Amino acid sequence: MTSGHATLSAAIRSESSLARLEKRIAFLREIDALKSILRRSYLMDTSRFENSAEHSWHVSLMSWILAEHAPAGTDICAVARMMLFHDIVEIDAGDTFIYDVAGTVEKAAKEQAAATRIFGLLPEDQRDELRALWVEFETGKTPEARFARALDRLMPLLHNYHTDGKSWREHGIRFTQAKQVNQVIANSSSELWEYALALLNDAAEKGFLIDDRHTAEDIPC
Amino acid sequence: MTSGHATLSAAIRSESSLARLEKRIAFLREIDALKSILRRSYLMDTSRFENSAEHSWHVSLMSWILAEHAPAGTDICAVARMMLFHDIVEIDAGDTFIYDVAGTVEKAAKEQAAATRIFGLLPEDQRDELRALWVEFETGKTPEARFARALDRLMPLLHNYHTDGKSWREHGIRFTQAKQVNQVIANSSSELWEYALALLNDAAEKGFLIDDRHTAEDIPC
Repeated sequence: MTSGHATLSAAIRSESSLARLEKRIAFLREIDALKSILRRSYLMDTSRFENSAEHSWHVSLMSWILAEHAPAGTDICAVARMMLFHDIVEIDAGDTFIYDVAGTVEKAAKEQAAATRIFGLLPEDQRDELRALWVEFETGKTPEARFARALDRLMPLLHNYHTDGKSWREHGIRFTQAKQVNQVIANSSSELWEYALALLNDAAEKGFLIDDRHTAEDIPC
Repeated sequence: MTSGHATLSAAIRSESSLARLEKRIAFLREIDALKSILRRSYLMDTSRFENSAEHSWHVSLMSWILAEHAPAGTDICAVARMMLFHDIVEIDAGDTFIYDVAGTVEKAAKEQAAATRIFGLLPEDQRDELRALWVEFETGKTPEARFARALDRLMPLLHNYHTDGKSWREHGIRFTQAKQVNQVIANSSSELWEYALALLNDAAEKGFLIDDRHTAEDIPC
């Protein structure tokens, strides 16, 4: 993958390189705000909530670290890039807790408006390219987006499991809820889903999750 | 770029996939600590110091955003990957302020020991691959490493400039010091160096940096 000089159209070249650079710098300044968007996950040492910028770093890097567990032929570079940009819209729309169903309904419209404003700071060709990358993540139809979405679930599961379910317990999350939310992992990798499910079962055993495995209807696969 | 199945040797395959996954999960848990390593740069809103994990996100993403300003043929995917891993050693070695010359001398040995311990959590083949990537960044001899090192300087310069030189002023940094430290940008991109130098000159004009442009020997290019 190269820096893309060859693909620039003559029309785009008519915008000076300095003008394009200045738009990009404005975008890079603006997205600094993602460092102040707090998630519901705690750091592994439980000292504070994680923010969406450091989460994006962690899952982008995770793409490379777990590449061998992706379906054969998955373009890991594309996954890692998607992960860098996947939460940018939260700067305007905020982080929606994955177990907050009402919040999820409102989220889509807010995020579309955020994408328009924030990616709109960039030169037009780059705006379109990165917005398409974000839409690819959101719709989850490519192998890369499915792997990205699996990792975006697996990471908070690890944070919860390895902090004795701190955030799960604070929100009274049940095993069947956690299983449903994380089921998206199975869309990409049966190996990672098997691993995740073992953690969820162990979390229910240990009381990190409310154990409704035998009391509630299980969520069908 | 694929997930690398084809390149796994028979010897490595003898380690079970689950054993390899568990080592990787241990690594991912360990590096969560990078979120607690504070730098000297402030967030753009000056509310707090930036940490090294969110900085790594910002500069990895910057690689994609500024790709068009890299030398032609630069492998941007490799730059973005390098950026994700470039500060991992700080978990043990801490962040060394770029203007702290004494700290820089001690830094190398601490960082080597950190690389051995932290990358050593991974399966051996991946340990070697990622340590080599970190060495590539540190030695700065490839076009990718030179661009990565340029962005790793340009980003804190932007943070300083756009916070009225907050960290520069707190540490009494002079124009000629800032020029010397940032000169590494010129090794990769004359366009980005020209942009950076304009900001440094303006910072001296505005008093964000101590203006020694006419009182001290200038640093030769």
